Formats: sequence, C-alpha cells, structure tokens
Amino acid sequence: MLHILALFSFLLVSSSHAAVQDFCVADLTAPQGPAGYSCKTPAEVTADDFVYSGLSVPGNTSTLFNAAINTAFVEKFPGLNGLGVSMARADIAPGGVIPMHTHPGASEIILIAKGSVTAGLISSDNTVYLKTLKEGDIMVFPQGLLHFQVNTGRTQAHLWASFGSPNPGLQILSNALFSNNLPSELIEKTTFLDDDEVKRLKALLGGSG
Amino acid sequence: MLHILALFSFLLVSSSHAAVQDFCVADLTAPQGPAGYSCKTPAEVTADDFVYSGLSVPGNTSTLFNAAINTAFVEKFPGLNGLGVSMARADIAPGGVIPMHTHPGASEIILIAKGSVTAGLISSDNTVYLKTLKEGDIMVFPQGLLHFQVNTGRTQAHLWASFGSPNPGLQILSNALFSNNLPSELIEKTTFLDDDEVKRLKALLGGSG
Amino acid sequence: MLHILALFSFLLVSSSHAAVQDFCVADLTAPQGPAGYSCKTPAEVTADDFVYSGLSVPGNTSTLFNAAINTAFVEKFPGLNGLGVSMARADIAPGGVIPMHTHPGASEIILIAKGSVTAGLISSDNTVYLKTLKEGDIMVFPQGLLHFQVNTGRTQAHLWASFGSPNPGLQILSNALFSNNLPSELIEKTTFLDDDEVKRLKALLGGSG
Amino acid sequence: MLHILALFSFLLVSSSHAAVQDFCVADLTAPQGPAGYSCKTPAEVTADDFVYSGLSVPGNTSTLFNAAINTAFVEKFPGLNGLGVSMARADIAPGGVIPMHTHPGASEIILIAKGSVTAGLISSDNTVYLKTLKEGDIMVFPQGLLHFQVNTGRTQAHLWASFGSPNPGLQILSNALFSNNLPSELIEKTTFLDDDEVKRLKALLGGSG
Amino acid sequence: MLHILALFSFLLVSSSHAAVQDFCVADLTAPQGPAGYSCKTPAEVTADDFVYSGLSVPGNTSTLFNAAINTAFVEKFPGLNGLGVSMARADIAPGGVIPMHTHPGASEIILIAKGSVTAGLISSDNTVYLKTLKEGDIMVFPQGLLHFQVNTGRTQAHLWASFGSPNPGLQILSNALFSNNLPSELIEKTTFLDDDEVKRLKALLGGSG
Amino acid sequence: MLHILALFSFLLVSSSHAAVQDFCVADLTAPQGPAGYSCKTPAEVTADDFVYSGLSVPGNTSTLFNAAINTAFVEKFPGLNGLGVSMARADIAPGGVIPMHTHPGASEIILIAKGSVTAGLISSDNTVYLKTLKEGDIMVFPQGLLHFQVNTGRTQAHLWASFGSPNPGLQILSNALFSNNLPSELIEKTTFLDDDEVKRLKALLGGSG
Repeated sequence: MLHILALFSFLLVSSSHAAVQDFCVADLTAPQGPAGYSCKTPAEVTADDFVYSGLSVPGNTSTLFNAAINTAFVEKFPGLNGLGVSMARADIAPGGVIPMHTHPGASEIILIAKGSVTAGLISSDNTVYLKTLKEGDIMVFPQGLLHFQVNTGRTQAHLWASFGSPNPGLQILSNALFSNNLPSELIEKTTFLDDDEVKRLKALLGGSG
Repeated sequence: MLHILALFSFLLVSSSHAAVQDFCVADLTAPQGPAGYSCKTPAEVTADDFVYSGLSVPGNTSTLFNAAINTAFVEKFPGLNGLGVSMARADIAPGGVIPMHTHPGASEIILIAKGSVTAGLISSDNTVYLKTLKEGDIMVFPQGLLHFQVNTGRTQAHLWASFGSPNPGLQILSNALFSNNLPSELIEKTTFLDDDEVKRLKALLGGSG
Repeated sequence: MLHILALFSFLLVSSSHAAVQDFCVADLTAPQGPAGYSCKTPAEVTADDFVYSGLSVPGNTSTLFNAAINTAFVEKFPGLNGLGVSMARADIAPGGVIPMHTHPGASEIILIAKGSVTAGLISSDNTVYLKTLKEGDIMVFPQGLLHFQVNTGRTQAHLWASFGSPNPGLQILSNALFSNNLPSELIEKTTFLDDDEVKRLKALLGGSG
Repeated sequence: MLHILALFSFLLVSSSHAAVQDFCVADLTAPQGPAGYSCKTPAEVTADDFVYSGLSVPGNTSTLFNAAINTAFVEKFPGLNGLGVSMARADIAPGGVIPMHTHPGASEIILIAKGSVTAGLISSDNTVYLKTLKEGDIMVFPQGLLHFQVNTGRTQAHLWASFGSPNPGLQILSNALFSNNLPSELIEKTTFLDDDEVKRLKALLGGSG
Repeated sequence: MLHILALFSFLLVSSSHAAVQDFCVADLTAPQGPAGYSCKTPAEVTADDFVYSGLSVPGNTSTLFNAAINTAFVEKFPGLNGLGVSMARADIAPGGVIPMHTHPGASEIILIAKGSVTAGLISSDNTVYLKTLKEGDIMVFPQGLLHFQVNTGRTQAHLWASFGSPNPGLQILSNALFSNNLPSELIEKTTFLDDDEVKRLKALLGGSG
Repeated sequence: MLHILALFSFLLVSSSHAAVQDFCVADLTAPQGPAGYSCKTPAEVTADDFVYSGLSVPGNTSTLFNAAINTAFVEKFPGLNGLGVSMARADIAPGGVIPMHTHPGASEIILIAKGSVTAGLISSDNTVYLKTLKEGDIMVFPQGLLHFQVNTGRTQAHLWASFGSPNPGLQILSNALFSNNLPSELIEKTTFLDDDEVKRLKALLGGSG
C-alpha cells in the first residue's frame, strides 16, 4: 500500500504540468507568435477541443466560382495549434473551379470524395503537371506552387484537402491581383496583362484603382 | 524579337535545375537519409508521380480487428518525399477497431467519411479525451500519443487520416508487445500483465518467447 | 580614447537586447506557445537560471516499480526553454523496472551510471532490439517508440537520460491504459486484453470505469 | 612534450571527420534528397567553395522585362548547401520590372543598391503593401506571397536579394501561366482571364495550347 | 450579382484573420518566446512595417576596430520576426577589421559592395579557409564558426551581410573575453594566454577582474 | 484462422519498409547530406547499432589541458544519425580545463558525475554566467556561445555532456586560432593579441605562419 502511494505521488507531480507538453490548444484571445497562438490552460482542455464539425456540411456553390471552400485552419479549429496539420473541404458544382492559388506555408494532399476533378500544378520551371482524378484518388501539391482544380464531371464534386501546417495560408491569384486597390498600372507592368482586361477583372472581383 | 530571345535564354538557364527546388519525388532504389529518400531526376517526373490511387478501394475488414488500414506513406506514394504530408484510409466493420496505437513521427487528423466512430486519445498525464464522431467530423491526435478508433455504429465505417509527415510511422500496441519474440518475462515486468494473459496474446497475435 | 568611446557606444546599443537572442529562460507564469514558454527579461537572468540541482539525490525506489524517475524538463528547469535538450535521472532497485513507455516529443540517450540494466526498444514493424548494458554504456531510443529498462543486476542501478527537446513528454503505457477512467470495454476492444486482467490492473494502478 | 603529443593525438582523431559537421558543400553529381545535395568530401573542400563571383557583373537588361535576374542559389554556388541562405542580383532598366512572382521556399530581403524601386507584396487576405524604396532601404517579403519590384526612377536600378534558404525557388506568375502548354481553357476558367488575352500572352511568352 | 455577394461573404470570413497566417510583425512590448516576439495585430500592420532604412548611412569607422557594424536584426526591424532572414552592414576603413566573431544562430553570406576585403573562416578541425574578395564577390560563413574580415585594400570598404535568421546573434571574441568581469585567472587557464596579455586587453577593451 | 492470416498479410506488407520510418542508422561509407548520413538497410540493423561503449573508460588526462574529451557523435556512434541527440565524456585532473570553446550546432547540458567543476558561459552582450557545480548538478550552455569548465576541486573530476544534435560540432578557441597556418598578422589584427603572444601560442599549440 505504501508502494502505491509513493507511485501516485510521483504521478501527481508530473501530472500538474504534463498535458502542456503534449499539445497546445490555441487561446485565440492571447498573444500569438511566429510558431502559433498561446496555449489554453491544460486543465480547461476537453475532448471537444480536439474535434471540429464545421466541415460536415457542403458549402454553397452558388458563387462566382461555382464552388465553395471551407477551411479548418487553426483560427477555426484551435486544437490544431502547433500540431503541423489542418484540413479544408471544397465543393464544386459541374463546371465550377477552385481557382489558381498557392498555399505559402505548407504542401497539400487532396482526396476526391465524390465526382471527377481535373487538377494541375505548375513548377518553378513552368512545367505543367495535369491529371484527371476520380473518386478515391489523392494528389499532392508541393508547398508554394500554383495549382487549381476544375470539376470536369457532370455531377457535383467534393474533395478533402489536408495540409502539413495548422496555418497553410491560401492566396487566390485573381483575388490577390484584382480584389484590392493595387494600381492597374502596376498590375499591367508586372503581369503583362492589358489595361482593359485588368479593369474588367477589377470590376468583376471587387477591386478599385 | 531580340528581347524575347534574351528572356528565353534566361528562363532556359534556370529551368535546367529548377524543378529540383520545388519537390523531390523519391527514388526508392537510391540512398535514403534522415530527411527522406533521394530524388528522382526532375526531367523524369510526370504528373503520375503526384497522384496515388491505392486508397480508392475499401480494405478487406475480415481481419482479427474487423478493420483494415491502408497507408499512403512515402514508400507507397513516392511523390510525398520531403513534403511533410501523407494519408491513410481505414475501413471498420461494425464492432471493429483500429486498435490502440501511436504515430511516432507526426500528428494526425481523421475525417469520418462514413458511419459513426468513437475515438479517444490519452495524454502524458493519463487524461482520456473521448468523443463519438459522426460523418464529416474531424478530430486531431497530437504526435506520439496513444489513440484508437472503434466503430460504434451499426454500419461499415470509413475514415480518412491525414498526417503532418510523409513518414509518420505506425506502432500498434498489441502487435508491438505480442507479435514478436520479446520474452514474456520482460513484458510482464514492464507492463504488470500476468503471465497467462501475455501467453494468450502471444498465441493470438503470432508472438513467441 | 575617442576611438574607445565610439566603440563602447556601439557595444552598448547592441547589449540592451543582445541577451535575448542567445537564450530564452522560461517565465513559467507568462503565456506559453507551441515553441515553449515566454522568456524571462534578460536583465533578470543570472547564472542560477542555467543550473539545476534537483537530480543530484537518488529517488526513492520504494514504489510499485521499485524504481524512481526524476525529470529535469523545462517546467522544472526553466533555463532549458527553447534550447532543444533536457535530462532525467532514474534509480532502479534490483528487479525494478522503468516500465514500457514512449517519449512523444524527442529521442533519448541513456547512460548507465551504476549497475547493470537490460533495455529494449520495439520498432514500428514489431522488431525487438534488446541489450544488457553495463556501466558506462550508452543506448539511444528513437523518438516515439516503445522502450523500457529493467535492473537485471544484483545492486541498485542508476542511469542518466538525455533528450533532444526541453519537453520530450513521457507516456507510461500501463498508467495510460489503467490509471484513468477509460472504459474497460474500450480498453479490451482496442488491446485484446481480457476483462479480468483489465479490471485487475485498474485496481492496481488507480483507474476506474 | 609527452603532454603535447597526447593532445595532438586527440586532435587528430576528431579532425579526420570534423569538417563534415560544420558544412556540406554540394557535390552536384551525387544523389540529392529533400534536405539538399550530398556533401563533397571535406578533404577536398577549399576556400573557393565558400566564394562565388557570378553576381559581380550587371545582368543584360535588354529583355522583355527590361530587367535581369541572376541567382546564386545552391545549384550555382554549391557551398550554400544545407546552410539556410542564398542571394540573387537584379538589374532593372528605367521602367523595367521584376514581374509578379513568389518564392515557394523562403522569405526574402531586398536591398536597394542603386536607384529607386517601387516594391509591393500582397497578403493572403488580398491586402497590398506598397512602398517606394531609395538607395540603402531594405524590404522583407514573407515566404510564398506574391510580390514585385518596378524601377520607378530615371536611372538603372540595382538590388540585392537575400533568402532564408539555399534553394528558395522562383515562380514568375506570367511565365507559369503563359510559357507552357497549360490549355487556354483551363487558364481562363481558373483565372477569369478572357480567351483573347490568354492567347495574346501565350504568343508573347512562348506558350502553346 | 447574387453570385458575387456569395463570393465576397466567403472572402470576408477568411480575411478577418488571414493576414496572421502570412507574417508576424513583432510587437516588441509583448511577450517573447523561443520562436520570436508576439505578433502585432494584423489590422495595424502597414507597408512601413516591412521596410527599414537604418542601413542606408555608412557607420562611423572611428572606432578601435576602424570599422562599424550596423545590424538590422528583429529588434530593430520588427517586420523580420519569424521570417528566417536578417541583414547587417559593415563599413571598414583601410586597415580596419571586423574582428574574429561567431553568429550562434545562423549562417551568413557577405557581399562586397565596395573595396577589397580579406575574409577567413575556421572549421571545427582547425582548418583555415582564407580568401581575398573584390567588389561583387559573395562568401558564405557556416553557422557558429569563427570568422573575420579585414580591409586589405587602400580605400574604405563596405559590405552587406545576410543571415538565415531574424536573430542570428553576434559574439565578438575579444569583447567576450576581455570586456567583462570574467576573472583573469579563468581566462588564462581556458585560453593559455598569459597574465600580462590578458590584463593589457582587459584595459584596452573595458574589462575588469 | 482466416482472420488471423488476413491480419498477418497486412502486417507483412507494412513490415517490409516500416523500420525505415523509425530510425536511420548511419552507413558511414555512403553519401552524406545536410541532414546526415545515408541509412543502413533496416534488415541489417541489430541492437548493437543502438549501443555504444566507447565512453565507459576515463580518458587519459596527461595532456596539455590536464583533461580528456571523448565524443559519442554520429561518426563514432552511427545509431544517432538523424535522432537529434549525442553525448560526450570529459575527465579533468585537478587544475585541468576543458578550454574555452563553442558547439556551432547544438545546445549542451553537462552533468557533474564526480568532483567539483567551475563552469562559465558568455552571452552575445558579453555577460559572464559563472557557477561552481558539485556532483549531480546540471548546467545548460545555449547553442553557439563560448563556454568552459575548470576542475576547481582537489580530485579528478568527470562530467557527462549531452547535446541536442547527433553532430553538435566542437570548436576549441585556442586550437582554432593557434593550431593552424592562419597568418599571425591576421590573428593579431582580428583579436588585438600582440605578436609575441601569438607566436608563443602557435609554438605551444602546433601552429605555423
């Protein structure tokens, strides 16, 4: 009996802080640093902190893209903080697209859950890697490279994306160029697009200047 | 015209090696180091290197676990080499289990594609985080901690697992203890299991000694 | 003389912040993030922050394990914060054990300071690597893999453990399974242990459910 | 004298391999892995391996961009292998541009060595950060984000770029979209550009399809 | 029109936090951790946070070293926080030196902007790599190794240094040994320098004890 | 019975490569990269690969330093490759020293196994942190900073050093300056030492030039 008490006193000592060493559920209201958010007090962490249900419902694809993206990055799913993984869901109507984009902070794997999707990536030497994927196929997109997905089937498509960071980032090319006040002249000089096209796209995508 | 030639000569120079800098598709026959496999020559890389179809078919769940795991780690999907992500698929018959296990090298997110699954993880201070998940739910398991999934629904369940490493590892507790020649006496001393139970499980799981 | 003043003014400028760049002694009362604790103000750091004496005394081995573990992880030795190293001490009575466990966050080297210890590790493919170590031998245990140490000599044994992280974690298998409220039915399904054995170990190790 | 000999024998032992631990000059003909190239034998490394003179001469700015980029990444400067740094030089004629681009693998600092340059970066939430820089100014571009530089002065401009990786990558947006065989239809669907503009730019930049 | 609204609501959601994922401009008044400073609120970040002008003016070389170093590390240029890069400027009068020093936290590339500089580095096996550099040459110094630069030309020299960390550190050998109260006896025992020389250098460099 | 066969076929598949994912014992004869040596074929790895006995015997302290250092870095203990840890042993006669040195690639913890040792470290802002340690004390030395140990007791001292890298490096200051052909004039200019002292130390420590 004495032995057991001694054992438990040992366990108690390490238990006061031990949970801290295994995970760091984000406290979104506390300071954030380069490695992520501050940690919620371990004693207040519950099973719910490790679970997120926000990806279960298909997004509304009645958008300009005929597609919807729903992310489960660390800001929405604080349990991911510091753990090097995250997910997203994309729903794409027939003919819809996940437009040309990059993830500055992580590589990505997509899994085709439903439908048929043509996906492509472009490497630094401007080589195109293009593939039509069917249900159950997975495809990897190396960190930071331009890529896109198009629903080339006749039915609604649905895919899961997984990332090697809780905070992979998402820079959509057309929004980056045309949904802000970047002066048209600078866009034109740095992309070779002509003035009419730049202005048309600024009008379409909410930009000014 | 001269301008354009000058431009293309510049592109050509960087293109001879540029693909190397974006990805490193594994050459499984060449030397492997702590960071992964050697890279396939970029010029021989095709779109197929970034795609894997081996997870599209459900595994055969007629096993001791009434479940099947199929991994898409770097050894099977060489395009993942060096990219910090991988996936796996689990199919679980009603009452089946993904037994208690760890991934020594990465955190994991599971997504319930079909069915209802009860999943749990245990932290270093022996706290249990337990949750019954429904279709579309995701749950994160921090790196290296014991966790498990049980099909607690009435239908076949199916889940996707994503990892923050091309090589997360998978150590299944009962196989690690009982499917090898680790002497029973050592198992008993280091786990407190009794001799009868150790011998029963060695017989069940293919161990000796 | 003028030169020297100019020199010192240069030194002074960099000195106001320079200590920050070399180390980050933990302020255990301030926010913690995925990379560790917040730093103590450099001006308040003294030599004592880099020294820890808590491992100098043998632990009391009158426990269920006939062994004692004493850790010098970052919570006890704040000077380790951010530095990628930590230590622990184990004392093991004859016949005692450091039971089957993992460190989720780092690899470990043990050094046998006194006595004779049989140590083993189990890899992901269930291979056992077993070795009897004598004084002065060192053995490495790769990150996240199950391992254990048993005093197989006739005298008290004593070993030093070093880790490649200030916060390696320590998950003791039997405590993780049996020292909490994880339902017996789930333990049995996910480990193949029988009900009697699970209940016996829950009673021994302080679990319920 | 005996002491000294003993000392030197100790030094000799560690010297046979010690250089390996400090650096890893690339052997461009040997296998490459995710962390970089294989190392040249330390005994064959000379001071010249740590020096590169290829950036000393201004590039020829008679290109489509009225600018020239010259990189000192690991393929050209093997001494950088594994060391987490690299450089490049850009020369920009008046009105010339370093077109919209990303570096998938590292953040960048530019230093304006000569002239006046307007530089901009675009964040994931489509905010534009724009600044006109003069000689001696430095500006940082976070990893993976779109950015550009334009010579808005009246004289030739010249800047140095530094990167936090020996292999930062360089994806030039217009070349990625228009200097290859990516089908026009896919470009149009994923960028919202119209068909005429896509075809005009493919003709200008050497693309087909 | 409805489509466009739906699109913009999607963009708005991600924009509320998105800037956080791209960069982490340091708030120097908030807690600092092992990975860097806390981040400034993204909404308050402006283009000025990514720009630093403090290196544009030559330093005053009327010092003991006949040289001046001016750093743009994270404490002075908060935009670098978490981004893995930084810079410094050195101005060296004829005959002046950047004395023997190390950077504990990063490798370095120097670029000779003006003049002629002899630079050297010493590896762990005591091999010297020595080179006289001319304008436009770059040289790399692997992390943590002793190195130095001497103006061996007849005119003022000026070089730019780039580092693979926002916080590379800078330990100047002679200041580390002689500009503090490290007891002379300990210096002598651990460096083999004789007492007279230690005392002379303590007097010259502001040390005591 | 069928179930069990199905299970074992599953285990067999993953076992063919699984050991690769857990560790990477160095093959010292194969190519080495920035992350370490190539891996030995897993099938040829035995328990002996994880064990090293070369630190068990005290070093011969009849040296110039009255001390001996014996390292267990990856070149001597190939099992450490890729695992982020290593060790060394120092034996110091009364009055002996581990001279002023740095480890460019890792932080270090020392543990005083026997005797009494005065240890010091110097930070980038030239602050000295000095402490006399007794048996069982541990002290941490942050990566890349100058530090030393002196036996200030009356008996032979013995300490264990642990590092957060399999390849921490070891640059001994006096050997780096005086045991090679670095020209005396350059040493003098970059350290402020006078010519007589430099020549005396070159003679003592085996240097020339």
